[in-house]
Amino acid sequence: MLRLHDNLTSGNGYKVRLLLAQLGRPYQRIEYDIDKRETRTPAFLAKNPNGRIPLLELEDGSFLPESNAILWYLAEGSPFLPPAGDHRRRADVMQWLFFEQYNHEPNIATVRYWITHRVPVTPLIELSIPAKRANGHAALAVMEGHLATRTFFVGERYGIADIALYAYTHVAGEGGFDLGPYPNVRAWIDRVAAQPRCIPITQG
Amino acid sequence: MLRLHDNLTSGNGYKVRLLLAQLGRPYQRIEYDIDKRETRTPAFLAKNPNGRIPLLELEDGSFLPESNAILWYLAEGSPFLPPAGDHRRRADVMQWLFFEQYNHEPNIATVRYWITHRVPVTPLIELSIPAKRANGHAALAVMEGHLATRTFFVGERYGIADIALYAYTHVAGEGGFDLGPYPNVRAWIDRVAAQPRCIPITQG
Repeated sequence: MLRLHDNLTSGNGYKVRLLLAQLGRPYQRIEYDIDKRETRTPAFLAKNPNGRIPLLELEDGSFLPESNAILWYLAEGSPFLPPAGDHRRRADVMQWLFFEQYNHEPNIATVRYWITHRVPVTPLIELSIPAKRANGHAALAVMEGHLATRTFFVGERYGIADIALYAYTHVAGEGGFDLGPYPNVRAWIDRVAAQPRCIPITQG
Repeated sequence: MLRLHDNLTSGNGYKVRLLLAQLGRPYQRIEYDIDKRETRTPAFLAKNPNGRIPLLELEDGSFLPESNAILWYLAEGSPFLPPAGDHRRRADVMQWLFFEQYNHEPNIATVRYWITHRVPVTPLIELSIPAKRANGHAALAVMEGHLATRTFFVGERYGIADIALYAYTHVAGEGGFDLGPYPNVRAWIDRVAAQPRCIPITQG
């Protein structure tokens, strides 16, 4: 059986939990306290030298890190990813996955983490927040424009690009990001939440 | 013919130039001055609303952003990416691409950019540099450990995971990152540089 090394507050972990729920795949979940650095122990680093969750442990005992690589691997052959021959549409999915990890997550997810985990405010954090707010809103504006003429991110069909972007967007308010100016994003959030077997981010 | 919207100092652009050279695919290159914000004009934002190079313009006139998504798209069916059926090995390639964009590029490439483009040192930049140095060295340490028992990143074969990581690693010194402590990384850099049709980062 698949095992997911995870933290329940992580949107990156939630991406994988959500897809597994929607695929109907059973798995065992192992919780780590990231504030106590439980993903930086020698035992965990032997599983993922990068010291991060989510980490998928496959049936053969091998490990796959990186939430969006896990999404792609699990979605292969399912309705959540365009088929193998559709290179162009798959490339569009992939570019949104990289956008999420480069332009969205380091801004919106990081500020949410600082706030919700009550991370002590260092001078670097204090100076970083305005930049991360601006960059996070820039990412939301890109999403807003894209969704002006689309119901889902790629090919008018719900899939892993939506899952990856939904994870931290639907809880952006927890990081102080107001979604008021983004009606297309809010309508898309509602459409994602209405998908069959959608689970809340708090569900393990 | 393919058109690459590019900036010659960009390692992200170089990834695409290097793969295109090694694939022997002809293309037209269009240079943008990123310091003059030429990728934030209305004309460019109509091509890529995220305002970034590299941006690949395909023969059908459509656009594909995100350097690593471009690599994947161009490498499909070539020796630089495991074949479509090898899901497990392709997932390993993909996790390194996400590692590069999340753990490597925002640290090593960003400091190189600040230095080589003589970006004025704001208080935020000054406070960020030590954290980016630490995070960049952590990424190099992960690479060093992985390469202790391997010649290339995935499947003992040169491919796009190597191209993506080589781009900013081989010029890490320009950002003040000393590769002295990473002999496995340095040996791998030599192996990549020795690949057929490898071009320098300065070549358009």
